[in-house]
Order: sequence, then structure tokens, then C-alpha cells
Amino acid sequence: MYGLIGKMTAADGKRDELIAILLEGTGEMPGCLSYVVAKDPDDDAAIWVTEVWDSAESHLASLQLPAVQEAIGKGREMIAGFGERHETEVVGGWGLDG
Amino acid sequence: MYGLIGKMTAADGKRDELIAILLEGTGEMPGCLSYVVAKDPDDDAAIWVTEVWDSAESHLASLQLPAVQEAIGKGREMIAGFGERHETEVVGGWGLDG
Repeated sequence: MYGLIGKMTAADGKRDELIAILLEGTGEMPGCLSYVVAKDPDDDAAIWVTEVWDSAESHLASLQLPAVQEAIGKGREMIAGFGERHETEVVGGWGLDG
Repeated sequence: MYGLIGKMTAADGKRDELIAILLEGTGEMPGCLSYVVAKDPDDDAAIWVTEVWDSAESHLASLQLPAVQEAIGKGREMIAGFGERHETEVVGGWGLDG
């Protein structure tokens, strides 16, 4: 399984709106086993997204889904920047039923 | 919801064994919505653990569960150290059914 742990920074005052777009643009995506959006309690602008996919290919393919493309289009201007980003090899756990 | 993103470093050659203990010690835990264990592909010793709980209290309480206590006891000597650790406020997503 393929995992992603990433941090992004929202534009001023846009975090909640950006989170709503992230959640709404990411409904059922083929191969997506987990997709979690979280606020950083220490930084009013920061968002953590942790993802698990059956494969890196499924993640890449998801970026072409119409709903994801629309979310990217709507969210792009609300993103001030990206922080750390880690690709991982997910071994197992709970909550991986998609 | 309460989230944790953390990195740990296994003692030399002990990563797979430590991962097995992490996975086996963390069966059904009250309030645990997601628990994902992953290898860092860029560091042979590094493990990422990402967790989602219904509350910080549930996470704290889990540390007292017999299975978790046993895992901590068995795994402790295989951990060389801890890396970054982020507490988050999880807002939503997929794969949060526990």
C-alpha cells in the first residue's frame, strides 16, 4: 500500500473553506483506503492530510478524476504553500477499508 | 477527533519485528478510528504511525490496555528513538470507521 503524509498552509483565513473543499472533492476514489484531513492546533493556517492507497498508481489516477480536478481548481487559490511531504509504504493497521 | 502523526526509529535490523508488534498490539481499541503503520522508503529504520481517535482521552486510556501494555513492553527495546510527533484536530475524511 502507498501512503502520503503532507502538510499544507492555507491562505489567510481560508483554512476552513479549503478543508471543506478537500473533504467534498474526495468522495469515493478508486483505490483510496484512507483519507484524513486535520487541523494543526498550533498553526491557524496549517492542514495535515494523511492518505492510504492500494498503490501509487491509484493515487496518481485519482488526480484526474473530475471531482478531484474540480476541487483542485477551487482550492488552488486558497493554498498559500506546502510543507513537509512524506511518501510511505503502508504495512497495515485499522481503518483501511476505504 | 484527535489525531497523531509520529515517526520512530527502530534499532538496527529490528524494523519488521517492531512493526509486527505495533500491529498485533493494536487490535480493537475503544475509540480508535484509524491506526496506520508504514515504512519510510528512504530510511531503513524509520516507521510512521498515523492515528485517529474519537478523543485524546481515548488515546490516553488505550495506553493502559493490557494488549497495548504488552506491546510496549515487547517493543521498547527495539525502538532506537522517536522523530517528529504532531497532534492534530481531525476534521473528517474516509476510513474513519474504526
